[in-house]
Amino acid sequence: MNGKLIVFEGVEGCGKTTQMQLCSQWLESLGVSVVLTREPGGTELGKDLRRLLLEKSEDKPVGEVTELLLYAADRAQHIEQELKPNLALGKYILCDRYTDSTIAYQGYGRGLNMSLINQLNDIATGGLQSDLTIWLDVDVEVGLARKRGQSKLDRIEQEKIDFHRRVQQGYTELAANFPSRIFRVDGSLSQELVHENIREILIRNSVIFKDN
Amino acid sequence: MNGKLIVFEGVEGCGKTTQMQLCSQWLESLGVSVVLTREPGGTELGKDLRRLLLEKSEDKPVGEVTELLLYAADRAQHIEQELKPNLALGKYILCDRYTDSTIAYQGYGRGLNMSLINQLNDIATGGLQSDLTIWLDVDVEVGLARKRGQSKLDRIEQEKIDFHRRVQQGYTELAANFPSRIFRVDGSLSQELVHENIREILIRNSVIFKDN
Repeated sequence: MNGKLIVFEGVEGCGKTTQMQLCSQWLESLGVSVVLTREPGGTELGKDLRRLLLEKSEDKPVGEVTELLLYAADRAQHIEQELKPNLALGKYILCDRYTDSTIAYQGYGRGLNMSLINQLNDIATGGLQSDLTIWLDVDVEVGLARKRGQSKLDRIEQEKIDFHRRVQQGYTELAANFPSRIFRVDGSLSQELVHENIREILIRNSVIFKDN
Repeated sequence: MNGKLIVFEGVEGCGKTTQMQLCSQWLESLGVSVVLTREPGGTELGKDLRRLLLEKSEDKPVGEVTELLLYAADRAQHIEQELKPNLALGKYILCDRYTDSTIAYQGYGRGLNMSLINQLNDIATGGLQSDLTIWLDVDVEVGLARKRGQSKLDRIEQEKIDFHRRVQQGYTELAANFPSRIFRVDGSLSQELVHENIREILIRNSVIFKDN
């Protein structure tokens, strides 16, 4: 597999969508073939699962273990159908959320059993890790305020502020534990500065070469 | 938990639906409160998952590991939302398929990793086993012929005959391995005789008492 899997992580409103777009444009300007995708919802099946996971509904409760299994199902399908084939074609995949989201949201956020989460991440990925993960770090309040300005909040976004703080803490610890894979970028800077910092990280870590 | 979880298993067309109805009527005539349910599809979320699992679709492929995770998600939700609360109320639950179906269909049928299946069954059930499982044993050809007479075949029913033979072999081995939990009933007998045999098994194993 000659492609690269570059994952964007962070709390709600951290700027992933914008930065993935900017990064994609930059990579394409260097002649790299880019695929933009996301979890959950990166496949047709995944779109259905994403709807089940994010639409809050009294009639259709989703238990905590169920939630974990549905995220894993979405991931397994995404990897088999999108990530592996595109990596084999040498493409650069920019993916909105991956395994670290499950650890941060379900593990730190909801307090679900971490060994269960790791077990399911292993089952779903079959060991496929990101080549590099960008963590866009913004204050929880700043991120949520950005989201509120945009659209109706989904089931996850509606969680209490404490939940999002625990998610943030999760990312902080993950970045400390995996310093050669997860790179923190200050997401409170201007879009342009954040983008420049991401470019620098990708170049510095040989994910991309300037003369590509 | 004072209720009982009684599971009905077997290949397509083995007569589960009919026998569950007859068993339910009999139990209710004894004054027992009965819940009829099934996997997948025993909850509102489960109905959506059942549709995703059983509707064959070119646009929406379902990988083997994904399939396993979706069955586990359906099961986890079903147990939390239906099985545990009803068992706590002392009800007798008659459930169309449970963990042994996953072993027979995904393990023996598709040849998926058995330790992965057991791992996911454990995660989904949290250890909740059936009190007693009735395996309705009919020849694969007989069962499929019955189904073909009824309605359009779903994704699982359309599998090749060899697949269903492997599933059958799975049930045979499961029944041999768990003789105190899984009871074989000859499903080729008349409806009345099958029903009588099931009654006898439930009484003999103290799942129900004649003077209930």
